[in-house]
Amino acid sequence: MTEVEAKKPQESLQNRLAQVVELLHRHKLVEDLTHRQEGQHHDRVESLVHRQNLAELQRKLDELHSADVAHILEALPLDDRLTVWQLVKVERDGDILLEVSDAVRETLLADMDDHEILAAARDMDADELADLASELPRDVVHELMESLDAQQRERVRSALSYEEGQVGALMDFEMVTIREDVSLEVVLRYLRRLKELPGHTDKLFVVDYDGVLKGVLPVKRLLVNDPEKLVSEVMATDPVSFHPDEDGYDAAQAFERYDLISSPVVDKNGKLIGRLTIDEMVDLIREESESEVLNMAGLREEEDIFASVWKSLRNRWAWLAINLVTAFMASRVIGLFEDSIEKLVALAALMPIVAGIGGNSGNQTITMIVRAMALDQVSTGNTSRLIRKELGVGLVNGIVWGGVIGVVAYLLYDSWSLGVVMTAAMVLNLLLAALMGVLIPMTLVRMGRDPALGASVMITAVTDSGGFFIFLGLASLFLL
Amino acid sequence: MTEVEAKKPQESLQNRLAQVVELLHRHKLVEDLTHRQEGQHHDRVESLVHRQNLAELQRKLDELHSADVAHILEALPLDDRLTVWQLVKVERDGDILLEVSDAVRETLLADMDDHEILAAARDMDADELADLASELPRDVVHELMESLDAQQRERVRSALSYEEGQVGALMDFEMVTIREDVSLEVVLRYLRRLKELPGHTDKLFVVDYDGVLKGVLPVKRLLVNDPEKLVSEVMATDPVSFHPDEDGYDAAQAFERYDLISSPVVDKNGKLIGRLTIDEMVDLIREESESEVLNMAGLREEEDIFASVWKSLRNRWAWLAINLVTAFMASRVIGLFEDSIEKLVALAALMPIVAGIGGNSGNQTITMIVRAMALDQVSTGNTSRLIRKELGVGLVNGIVWGGVIGVVAYLLYDSWSLGVVMTAAMVLNLLLAALMGVLIPMTLVRMGRDPALGASVMITAVTDSGGFFIFLGLASLFLL
Repeated sequence: MTEVEAKKPQESLQNRLAQVVELLHRHKLVEDLTHRQEGQHHDRVESLVHRQNLAELQRKLDELHSADVAHILEALPLDDRLTVWQLVKVERDGDILLEVSDAVRETLLADMDDHEILAAARDMDADELADLASELPRDVVHELMESLDAQQRERVRSALSYEEGQVGALMDFEMVTIREDVSLEVVLRYLRRLKELPGHTDKLFVVDYDGVLKGVLPVKRLLVNDPEKLVSEVMATDPVSFHPDEDGYDAAQAFERYDLISSPVVDKNGKLIGRLTIDEMVDLIREESESEVLNMAGLREEEDIFASVWKSLRNRWAWLAINLVTAFMASRVIGLFEDSIEKLVALAALMPIVAGIGGNSGNQTITMIVRAMALDQVSTGNTSRLIRKELGVGLVNGIVWGGVIGVVAYLLYDSWSLGVVMTAAMVLNLLLAALMGVLIPMTLVRMGRDPALGASVMITAVTDSGGFFIFLGLASLFLL
Repeated sequence: MTEVEAKKPQESLQNRLAQVVELLHRHKLVEDLTHRQEGQHHDRVESLVHRQNLAELQRKLDELHSADVAHILEALPLDDRLTVWQLVKVERDGDILLEVSDAVRETLLADMDDHEILAAARDMDADELADLASELPRDVVHELMESLDAQQRERVRSALSYEEGQVGALMDFEMVTIREDVSLEVVLRYLRRLKELPGHTDKLFVVDYDGVLKGVLPVKRLLVNDPEKLVSEVMATDPVSFHPDEDGYDAAQAFERYDLISSPVVDKNGKLIGRLTIDEMVDLIREESESEVLNMAGLREEEDIFASVWKSLRNRWAWLAINLVTAFMASRVIGLFEDSIEKLVALAALMPIVAGIGGNSGNQTITMIVRAMALDQVSTGNTSRLIRKELGVGLVNGIVWGGVIGVVAYLLYDSWSLGVVMTAAMVLNLLLAALMGVLIPMTLVRMGRDPALGASVMITAVTDSGGFFIFLGLASLFLL
C-alpha cells in the first residue's frame, strides 16, 4: 500500500490514547443528554456540540499514523472502537486493517458492508490480499480477484497455497530485479526511471533471463562502487535465501542472527519468486514469543482484551477442563489416605505446602527448558546432562527449603518425626518436579507438539498428585 | 566490527550443532584413550588422530558465521564450550563475544587472559565497547580506553553514562551525515569516496554546521530522484527521532509500528548524537518478551541452561522463598479448620480442587492482562470494564465447572449439600481469581514495578489461601 512517512510522535502513544478516550467520553455524555431530552428545543444545540466533538476527534485521528490508529482501536472496548472506526477516512481503512490483530480485525470487518471492504482492499498488494482473504466474505474475495490482472491473481493464489507461517505465505512480491551484465551506471538510471522503490529495499536481486537468482546487489555497494563497474563484479553471489515451504520462524531467526533487512525467496529451481522483509519477521518473532506465554498458561490464542465473555470462554475452556481432570486425580490421591488424615489432621494442613512448592519449582524448570528449546539450544544429546543439573538444583532446594519447613512443622505440631517426613517429602517432590520439568517439554517436542503447550498445567498436575502421594504415603508408613 | 556477508545456510542450525557435538565426542573418546594408555607407544598414533579431529572441528567452525558459532557455544555444556572457544580464530573472538548472551559471555571471558581480551576488543566500535565494558577486567578497560582517540573515548563515556535499556546505551555512532544545500549528485560522489557504508544505512542524516538535525535523506529517495535536485528538496524534514534518555523498549515499539530500519538520536538541542538500528531493536523485543516469560515464573534473569547448580539456585531462590511463605499461609488457613476436617475428612480431599482450578483460571486472566499491558493496551480508564469482563468469565466458568465438580462430589460422597458447597466455593474462588488477576498486575504497575513480576506465584497464593478459606468456611457454616 502507499507508504506514509512516519512523523516524530510529539506525545507518547499512551497520551494520544488518553486524548481519544477523553473525546469519546465527551461525545457520549452529549449523546446521553440528547437522548434523554429528545423532542425538546435543546435538541439543536446539543447536536451541534455533538458534531463539534466528533469533528475534533476526527481531526485528531487524521493526524495519526495508521499504525497508531490501529493501536488505539486495539485498546478500545467494542462500542468506542466502532465509533472511532467510522470516523477514519475511507482511504486509510486498508492500511489500518492490515495493522490490527486478527481478533480486532474481525470486529472491524463485521461493521463494514461489502462495498466498503472492496474499497479498502482495492489498493492492497497481492501478499496483503492473501493475508486477509480468509477473513473476508466469499463474494468480496471473488470480486477482488476479478479486478486483478493475471500476474497479481497468480500471486494471490500462490500465497494462499502455503500454510500460515510458511515462508511462502509471508513473502511479498515487491522485488527490484536487475541483470548481471550491466554497469552500475545503468542500474542507477534504471532506478531513477522507477520513480519509487518498495519499502525495505536494501538490496536488488540479480536474475538471469529465466528469472533464476544469480546474486544480490546490496544498495550500499551500488552507492560506493565505481559506476563503470559491472553488476557481476560487485554483487554478492551466495546470499542467504529461503524456500517458500520453509518454516517462517526459522527464517525469522536467520534474519535475527545475520542482521538481514530483506532476503530473496527462490523455488526449487533457484527461480526468484518473492522476498522476505524484516518487518514481517519482527511481527513473527513477537507472535512466537506471545504464543509461548499464552500456551504456557493454557490459552489457545491471542484474545482481544475486550472480547465478549463468550469468546473468552471459548479461548480458555479447554485447559480449564484438563485442569479439572488433573485436580480431580489429585483429589482421589488424597482420598486414598483419608484414614491417615482422620488420624492425624495436621497432614491436611501441611500437604498443600509440599504440592505448592513443587509446582513453583517445576514451573521454573519447565520455563527454562521451553525457552532454551525455542532458541534451539537443546538437542537430544544433552537431555541427560540437563536432567542431572535440574535434579541437582531440586536436591539442594529440597534440602534447604524442606529443612526450613520441616523445622516449622516440628515447632507447630511438636513432632520431630512429622518434621522429618515433611522434609523428605519436599526433597522427593522437588526431584520429581525437576525430572518432569525436563521430560514434559522434551516429550511434547518428540510428539511434534509445541513444548510450551499447557506446560504449566501439566507440571502442576504432576507436582500436585505426586506431592500428595509422596507426603501422605510417607506419613502413613512412618507416623501411624 | 567488520561485516561478514551471511551465506546461505546449506544445512539447518540444528544439523550443524549436531555435527560439532559429534566431532567433540570423537575428540573426547580419543582423549580418554590417550589418558588411559599414557606412557605407551600408542601415544603418537592417538595424538595424531586427536589432532586430526580437532583440525576437522576447526575447519567446520571456520566455515560458520560468527552468529552461528555463538549459537553453538550457547548450546554446549561448559567443558565442550571452552574446547570450541579455543579453536575459534582469534580475529573472530570479538564478533562472537558480541553475539552470545551475557551468561555465556561471562564463561568465555573467564577463560581468556587480558592479552586475548584486548586483542578481541581492539576492533570494536565505541558502542560495542561500552556494551562489554562492565564485564571486562578493570585494567583491560583502562588499557582499551588509552588506545582510543579522543572522539571514540568520548563516545564510550557517553554510552556508559546511560542506564541499560535507555536509548543512549543502545545507539551506535555510525552515521553518514550530509548538508542540505548540496545536490544529490554531490552526495553520490561523497558516498563513493567513503568506500564503505555502515550496516543498516537506509537513510543519510542531514545536519547543519552546528550538527543540528535538519532532516533525513532516505537512500530510496537518493536513488530515484534527479541528481540535479538539492538535498533540501528531497529530504524528509520531520523524521521519527529519539532522545538518549528515552526508554529503549518504547523506541523498539516505534520501530515496529513505523517499520523503521534506522533512526536518528538527538540531544535536547536537536543535535545529532547517534542512531538506533533495527537489529538492536529486534534483540530488545526478544529480550523483553523473554523477561516477561521468566518474570511470570519467578526467575530473575536469563539463565544459561548449562549454568552450574549454584548459579541456578541463586537465580531461582528468591521466588521460591516467597512461595514458601505463601504456601505456609495457605497451610495456616487450613489449620484454622482442622476441627471441621476431622469431622468430615472428605473436605481434605476436595479442597485442592477448588484451589487448583482457581489458580489455573487466575493464571489465564493475569497472563492476558500482563500481555495487554506490555502492548500498552490497558489504560487506567478501562480497569473497571476489564474487571467486569473477567468477573463474567469467572462466573460462567464457576457455574459450569463448579457444577460438574459439585455433581462429582455428590456422587462420590453421597451428600448433595457437600456438592452445593463445592459449587458455591468454586464460583466464589473463580470470581476472586478474576478480580485479583486484574488487580495484581495493575497494582504492580502503579508501584512502578514490572507487571509480570512473580505474577504466577502471587495469583496462586491468593487462589490457594482464598480457595481453602472459602471452601472450608462454607463447609463449616453449612455442613457441620
